[in-house]
Amino acid sequence: MGKFVIIGERIHCISPSIKKAMETMDPAPILARAKEQLDAGATYLHVNIGPAEKNGEELMKWAVTTIQSEFDNVPLCLDTANRKAIEAGISVYNRSKGKPIVNSADAGDRIENIDLAADNDAIVIALCSKAGVPADNDERMMYCQEMLERGMELGMDPTEDMWFDPLFLVIKGMQDKQMDVLEFIKQLSDMGFKSTGGLSNVSNMAPKELRPILDSTTVAMAMYCGLTSAIVNPCDRRLVETIKSADIIKNNALYADSFLDL
Amino acid sequence: MGKFVIIGERIHCISPSIKKAMETMDPAPILARAKEQLDAGATYLHVNIGPAEKNGEELMKWAVTTIQSEFDNVPLCLDTANRKAIEAGISVYNRSKGKPIVNSADAGDRIENIDLAADNDAIVIALCSKAGVPADNDERMMYCQEMLERGMELGMDPTEDMWFDPLFLVIKGMQDKQMDVLEFIKQLSDMGFKSTGGLSNVSNMAPKELRPILDSTTVAMAMYCGLTSAIVNPCDRRLVETIKSADIIKNNALYADSFLDL
Repeated sequence: MGKFVIIGERIHCISPSIKKAMETMDPAPILARAKEQLDAGATYLHVNIGPAEKNGEELMKWAVTTIQSEFDNVPLCLDTANRKAIEAGISVYNRSKGKPIVNSADAGDRIENIDLAADNDAIVIALCSKAGVPADNDERMMYCQEMLERGMELGMDPTEDMWFDPLFLVIKGMQDKQMDVLEFIKQLSDMGFKSTGGLSNVSNMAPKELRPILDSTTVAMAMYCGLTSAIVNPCDRRLVETIKSADIIKNNALYADSFLDL
Repeated sequence: MGKFVIIGERIHCISPSIKKAMETMDPAPILARAKEQLDAGATYLHVNIGPAEKNGEELMKWAVTTIQSEFDNVPLCLDTANRKAIEAGISVYNRSKGKPIVNSADAGDRIENIDLAADNDAIVIALCSKAGVPADNDERMMYCQEMLERGMELGMDPTEDMWFDPLFLVIKGMQDKQMDVLEFIKQLSDMGFKSTGGLSNVSNMAPKELRPILDSTTVAMAMYCGLTSAIVNPCDRRLVETIKSADIIKNNALYADSFLDL
């Protein structure tokens, strides 16, 4: 089994400094965030340019080439509601370190992002949801199957290029659903599928000092269940330490006393 | 499901200050360690008096009454190779906060500790081992069944009063066995059994600063699998934070922003 894939979430237009950098096409703030995440252990970097209705194609191309040219073609996960912008980003993307990831398809309005990924030989994150939160794992599995069928019809390799997102739920309000989500990850893993998702959603609305504790506990449990990746903040040291330890316990990486620095 | 049971491991004659306190029957060092562990979140306190061949009965009685009278009859886990000393300790033990635990039986030389627990209406920790490290989970399960049979013949309630110990193994040297141990905990849990053990054994020989990281990652994974207790150092803050978070995720305890202080 390969090592856990950390997708660094911090290049996101929701951050005021990144939003401004994207508006003015100023590379410095974006490259700084890329560097700190790569230094902290990210494998992929997530790039969210927002709706980007006006200049999305130009903006995504710029972001992809700016980041990849500075950091040895680091693989990227592209996120925007503007599909043409994702395709434009992929058109200039260098695959030498890994395929681009399209974030994300679901079984509802965004199902065509599967087609987009298939057409462009990309990985797609497939959110097991249609409209809102699935009631239970049967519903999650139904959406998973719908997306799986679509991807396979389009010739995708579902065990490599479809990464299923179980939809992590907030503990504060949906505490009694947490074990369901973990169980679903186990089901995906037992079926041979990769999985990822916005794991830190579990600690939304919790006090700031509790978030790394809840996130790291969740990631250890989820990795036992077979979670293969997550879209997280790699600068959360406790979280990354836990991910690296779980990779050791799962024998995905060889133990050395220096394993946290590797 | 009930909350995870932390058995505080720090009253142990391997510690020079505790050894001396036991030799001189000086209560202060022992009560200080009891207090710090209870303050940190321990439910049970482990009391290991060593072989105690000479004055074991007197010593264990003294230890039990000294600790229980100071801390509102805190429940205790009694550990010594001297069986008469365990029985002497139980003879003065107050059960109002929980049955005494006998640590430990195994499927080999120590199997009679099951009889001792049965005769004294105590809980027994039943180590799924005979001589050395079990080769695999089939062997673990064979020993589990042997001890189960013996306990049931003696009229024990095996789902309440036999806590099975999977035998946690050191990562440094037995990295490839870690998932087996976790899988065995899952098997015990699926059968309806409680489990416990010396969890920090996983990080033996690892650098000191890594131990809380490896232990807390392991406990989160083990609690997903159904581990119900562990014999650990409750003064390891990261470990206890992780245990309390896993209890939240498993819905064993209700979430509140202050859950770490509860």
